[in-house]
Amino acid sequence: MSTPGRTLHLNAFLMSTGHHEASWRLPESDPVAGTDVRHFQNLATIAERGRFDSVFFADSPVIFGDVGRRPAGRLEPTVLLTALAAVTEKIGLIATASTTYNDPYNLARRFASVDVVSGGRAGWNVVTTAGPDAARNFGIDDQPSHAARYERAAEFLDVAGKLWDSWDDDAVIADKESGVWADPHRVRPINHAGKHFSVQGPLNVPRSPQGYPLLVQAGSSDDGKDLAARYAEAVFTAQQTLGDAQAFYSDLKGRAAAAGRDPEGIKILPGIVPVIGSTESEARKLDQQLEDLIKPEYARAQLAKTLRVDPADLALDRQLPADLPNEDEIEGAKSRYTLIVQLARRENLTVRQLIARLGGGRGHRTFTGTPEQVADAIELWFRNGAADGFNIMPAVLPSGLEAFVDHVVPVLRARGLFRNEYTGNTLREHYGLARPLNRYSGALAAAGASGA
Amino acid sequence: MSTPGRTLHLNAFLMSTGHHEASWRLPESDPVAGTDVRHFQNLATIAERGRFDSVFFADSPVIFGDVGRRPAGRLEPTVLLTALAAVTEKIGLIATASTTYNDPYNLARRFASVDVVSGGRAGWNVVTTAGPDAARNFGIDDQPSHAARYERAAEFLDVAGKLWDSWDDDAVIADKESGVWADPHRVRPINHAGKHFSVQGPLNVPRSPQGYPLLVQAGSSDDGKDLAARYAEAVFTAQQTLGDAQAFYSDLKGRAAAAGRDPEGIKILPGIVPVIGSTESEARKLDQQLEDLIKPEYARAQLAKTLRVDPADLALDRQLPADLPNEDEIEGAKSRYTLIVQLARRENLTVRQLIARLGGGRGHRTFTGTPEQVADAIELWFRNGAADGFNIMPAVLPSGLEAFVDHVVPVLRARGLFRNEYTGNTLREHYGLARPLNRYSGALAAAGASGA
Repeated sequence: MSTPGRTLHLNAFLMSTGHHEASWRLPESDPVAGTDVRHFQNLATIAERGRFDSVFFADSPVIFGDVGRRPAGRLEPTVLLTALAAVTEKIGLIATASTTYNDPYNLARRFASVDVVSGGRAGWNVVTTAGPDAARNFGIDDQPSHAARYERAAEFLDVAGKLWDSWDDDAVIADKESGVWADPHRVRPINHAGKHFSVQGPLNVPRSPQGYPLLVQAGSSDDGKDLAARYAEAVFTAQQTLGDAQAFYSDLKGRAAAAGRDPEGIKILPGIVPVIGSTESEARKLDQQLEDLIKPEYARAQLAKTLRVDPADLALDRQLPADLPNEDEIEGAKSRYTLIVQLARRENLTVRQLIARLGGGRGHRTFTGTPEQVADAIELWFRNGAADGFNIMPAVLPSGLEAFVDHVVPVLRARGLFRNEYTGNTLREHYGLARPLNRYSGALAAAGASGA
Repeated sequence: MSTPGRTLHLNAFLMSTGHHEASWRLPESDPVAGTDVRHFQNLATIAERGRFDSVFFADSPVIFGDVGRRPAGRLEPTVLLTALAAVTEKIGLIATASTTYNDPYNLARRFASVDVVSGGRAGWNVVTTAGPDAARNFGIDDQPSHAARYERAAEFLDVAGKLWDSWDDDAVIADKESGVWADPHRVRPINHAGKHFSVQGPLNVPRSPQGYPLLVQAGSSDDGKDLAARYAEAVFTAQQTLGDAQAFYSDLKGRAAAAGRDPEGIKILPGIVPVIGSTESEARKLDQQLEDLIKPEYARAQLAKTLRVDPADLALDRQLPADLPNEDEIEGAKSRYTLIVQLARRENLTVRQLIARLGGGRGHRTFTGTPEQVADAIELWFRNGAADGFNIMPAVLPSGLEAFVDHVVPVLRARGLFRNEYTGNTLREHYGLARPLNRYSGALAAAGASGA
């Protein structure tokens, strides 16, 4: 499956003090880092020093988990990305935003604005936002069904795409002498009238440096994969085993091809939570230190919520109950549910062991070892049809990202697997993807635009 | 009416190449400045050098006017403000956002995030967004009525206020040893259930440096003034004469008092479009240069739209028709409509003359003269119960803002009317306003918070 000269894409998934739920309790961690813009500016600078393709923020319009137990405040990601754009030059900036709890006009405009301000570095991780608590912040008693959310998401992306294309790339003439600012025929209403949205347009932002933000998707249910196959240019996914990752990779590339797309135009990045030490025992020590800081009763309550069972049914030193719901009864985070149950069953984990595994990556693959071992783990999947790159999720921040950049990236470079320097300026250029043509421009205009 | 030691507040209202509609056609102007973040970063830096209280951006989720005739693209203001926060240290940052076309959870969160990222410098100009074109970008065939928009705005502000107060200032304990991050009793759902909104809360951003953004209002209709009297801490207004400005000032301060507020807690800033020259004739020359660049047929079409008449009914060299609609038939921008009609009638202006006056400030007061004369015009209104400060709207940017900062500000300082240095760090401190208490905190907690 490996292509000569093919190189990895690396995204840094940033989250307050790190992806391990207990990371904030380490002596080195700032427990209010989650709302400290300088913390994130520092992280983005470290990732850019490592020549990562991008940094990324998850998001939901609701408090995650129990504020009594772990850091809960977070800044709105498009605001945070703009603050990162100011202190970086090349690295891509990917924000999560919900199609269920936004309007397409406002959100299309905000991403176009971030793309302009960052000089073409914006990306949008498109999510449909599971869970009733988010719904209740928007006047809805319970979340819309999984299918309804994905149907709305597809129409949302159609509308956003039309808005982003509502200005031709060369619409602005700015002829001072004649007093003509733009060619009115090259700035068009979109007149979208659909099931979920009616939007007149045009957008009030000219077409942005990338045309529109890089579109990212992270849902792994059938609906999620179908949406990704149609629209996504990069996909973040949680995969625990090489076999599962290979199956996901070929399934999604196949779906993209079936949707009439070049499978190379969709980059697949499984998550990995690396816990890095200069020796194996040092790495394991850090792992143990984090595990010892987990509050089992809190983690059990979170797991019970995910599994839709009573916490009392989860005995810490026994395996999961046999009679768990089927995935199709789950209305949100379907694929994550299945992954967790399969992980526990496959490895015969007790609830306590499962909690330790999930504490590190909420279902993403954790890997503890030396820089060489981490590089081996990455290379194995990359060379065997499981990944185009990785979503790097340091257990502890900033130290875990620094360790990756300073110790794993050089190994990947020595193996010819990762760039030494940026070769482009935009996020899409980092991922090796072409700037999208404007759907409304004539062939001549489109050819001009793609060369811009 | 003047108070000893009372000093002016100055806000810089920023808009692409300036407030004059033809400013983009000047040789010095960059016609695509409206989407150039470096242009606005430069302007904010100039305003901060002048120790202005704040910079401000108007906004609407729609294209204003005719893209064929004047610059139309604009960046989303909360994104733009964040980019300005990165290159400034003290100056306040005020963005306009619509209560009609946003959800309170998302918008409250975004402003809280800007307040955090800027270290307490965020302000929100609350608008209800007139016009059917904006409505049609959000699935609504025609705009909601003026009254319905203001009713929604009031509830929106109630919900936003509850969300901003949903975390106590001291909610985060961050006790690593015990593993307690926040006190769950100090992060509360708001459980708002009203006519327009049902919002569970809490917000997912801790209480921000200012508690919440400075609340600004700019509607001058009765509904607008009532909303301002209840919520606004600063008010932008278009007033053409000292008498009108005095009447507005005392009316609004009276309404604030009637609403149980300290009238000093609401700062009133009329707009002024200064055209500055080192001599009167130099100033008039710049004025004439701008007037000569106006396209009368375009300006007439815009005026006809504002007045709800056929452009053919507006002969350029005649006065306005006698039979114009009454203000109460107007569903948006009511007070601006009345102001324009009164201006034309009071000064017996022809359509051509009215267009020239409106070209400079869209209904705001224009003033052409030397720095001393501009300072006189400002001082007169300030000392005579018409203003707590001014909304400075340079006809041309950046040169008009530079002229004001370099030549008018020193005159105001020499007269003891304006600060030499910032004395506070937050936007509310610049305006001399107290940090708001948290409505949910106990008396003890509130006293602690107000001293924070």
